[in-house]
Amino acid sequence: MKTTLTLTILAASAITLSADTLIQVATNAGLKAIPTDHAALMKLIDNPKNHLTPEKIELGKKLYFDTRLSKSNLISCNTCHNLAIGGVDGVSAAIGHHWTANPHHLNSPTVYNAVFMSKQFWDGRSPDLEDQAQGPMQAAPEMAITQKMAVERISSMPAYVAEFKKVYKDGNITFKKIADSIGAFERTLVTPSPFDKFLNGDEKALTDAQKKGLKVFIDKGCVSCHTGVGIGGSMQPFPAVKPYKYANIGDFKGDKNSMVKVPTLRNITQTAPYFHNGAVWSLSEAIKIMGETQLGQDLTNEEVKSIKTFLTSLTGKKPTINYPILPTVTETTPKPVTK
Amino acid sequence: MKTTLTLTILAASAITLSADTLIQVATNAGLKAIPTDHAALMKLIDNPKNHLTPEKIELGKKLYFDTRLSKSNLISCNTCHNLAIGGVDGVSAAIGHHWTANPHHLNSPTVYNAVFMSKQFWDGRSPDLEDQAQGPMQAAPEMAITQKMAVERISSMPAYVAEFKKVYKDGNITFKKIADSIGAFERTLVTPSPFDKFLNGDEKALTDAQKKGLKVFIDKGCVSCHTGVGIGGSMQPFPAVKPYKYANIGDFKGDKNSMVKVPTLRNITQTAPYFHNGAVWSLSEAIKIMGETQLGQDLTNEEVKSIKTFLTSLTGKKPTINYPILPTVTETTPKPVTK
Repeated sequence: MKTTLTLTILAASAITLSADTLIQVATNAGLKAIPTDHAALMKLIDNPKNHLTPEKIELGKKLYFDTRLSKSNLISCNTCHNLAIGGVDGVSAAIGHHWTANPHHLNSPTVYNAVFMSKQFWDGRSPDLEDQAQGPMQAAPEMAITQKMAVERISSMPAYVAEFKKVYKDGNITFKKIADSIGAFERTLVTPSPFDKFLNGDEKALTDAQKKGLKVFIDKGCVSCHTGVGIGGSMQPFPAVKPYKYANIGDFKGDKNSMVKVPTLRNITQTAPYFHNGAVWSLSEAIKIMGETQLGQDLTNEEVKSIKTFLTSLTGKKPTINYPILPTVTETTPKPVTK
Repeated sequence: MKTTLTLTILAASAITLSADTLIQVATNAGLKAIPTDHAALMKLIDNPKNHLTPEKIELGKKLYFDTRLSKSNLISCNTCHNLAIGGVDGVSAAIGHHWTANPHHLNSPTVYNAVFMSKQFWDGRSPDLEDQAQGPMQAAPEMAITQKMAVERISSMPAYVAEFKKVYKDGNITFKKIADSIGAFERTLVTPSPFDKFLNGDEKALTDAQKKGLKVFIDKGCVSCHTGVGIGGSMQPFPAVKPYKYANIGDFKGDKNSMVKVPTLRNITQTAPYFHNGAVWSLSEAIKIMGETQLGQDLTNEEVKSIKTFLTSLTGKKPTINYPILPTVTETTPKPVTK
């Protein structure tokens, strides 16, 4: 990676690049577009162990928005990963059951394009979205429900029972199937952007300022971590070069090289506050800090501004989602516990 | 009302009613259908002081779902009046900012068909939805935002500024205009049901059991309060005849005749728990209690069951709502306060 990067920097710096050369440089640097071809996209986002079907995605959407999957009846996946506001919650540390802040002061990462991350959670402890979805439902400071209560709640609603029967060969409702369905829906939350159009050959999809910013982004080495179709998503040491300015907030103390999942830069203008501990609200400040902490570079204000301009091209089109009408509780549905 | 009711009971009891006679009896008893004619519906739900326009409704929808209208960034109108689950929250007493329960232990009433209520809030202190919408945003145990912060938040997002300019002649964003827009959206949340079809002349829209239940509903006098197009919505003494069984929960102590807004019975099978204090989870129990408390009648199990069967015909078709993609915060947007 380092060698490729160095060569890329040399190549990009030496000449004023034409658009098609810049596409080549970006591609060589590892940046990839979300496929426009439906079959190619489906292949990329599918999980061989949990194949996508339209029925499973629809069921997963319902469960994603269903507050009855929390102990209190008040919190859904969408509470912290709100699809209306970039797939995040707009607060520094996630807040869940009984208004409890995340004990490690961790910020809710966006669910949009999370399918492109190599691992899930900031510490990468989960291999995929299906596995990840099991965590927050059960976590005491998040949705705080037991597997048993989740299954009992869903199983008590005839419309859900019928839908599970349609989606899964056996109608048996399990916690794993609930999470698998949610994971399937989340896999579809991809947001093609002007940058994807550009990578796919549409030279006019980026403004000149965005192209210039892309060049700075590549030249400075941001692309060494923020790469691939996720423009992020691998595990990397953090901080890599210099201490993290806000290491006093949350669990990553900055006194050693912790491995942290690189967040996607897709829709980054919509997902403040930034970093694993949500310590920074300004995208410009975030860019500057990353330059120092991860690349050992003191980016000029102009470079920061230019990179930020490129990042606006990563704001993508969100899938259209009909807000679901959920199955109705019955008298046997376990009651909410708000204490 | 009492005289009409007595006559209705006599008329309904004396003979086995044909469907068209039952429609007449129901109409005479004051039950009204949601108009099928678009112009008639618009006339019914419009507010002369806040005329509905498609642009205002769309803006109102965005604001209704916007969590940034709460102090914390975590609570929207939709949190307590969740359109996915009958326009309610599925908990006994509403829970808001910092997980504070409603201090009067009041249950969140459904927003669906709230436009048909003569007054808003359980105590009827608000004349319409535009006025009502101002309350929960500011209430400390709900969204807890100040008028100033609400206006600053919305004004800081260019996409909102543009949308307000399109909707209102002057582009000046005020707290009143925010609430007016939300109220406009809420006015559209009406849910035509099989019972409306029946009242409009489709005799087959109700099953025989539902027709029988409607007759019991009218005969027993439920219709004296649950009437009109809202099938509820007027202010009535509560308890009227006997003490309320759960008067120990919340502020209505049952030691005097308090005036309480009659909740709509539309979608009642979807809006548990019941009553102003959300004390009752079973619809059958709620029907039985109403018979005792309000009508002084000891309804038989069969009568309760029959009324409940009729009530299922009030479950209506919800409007299709595209989950909105909301304007993005900027660096000048006032930050959330979760404390």
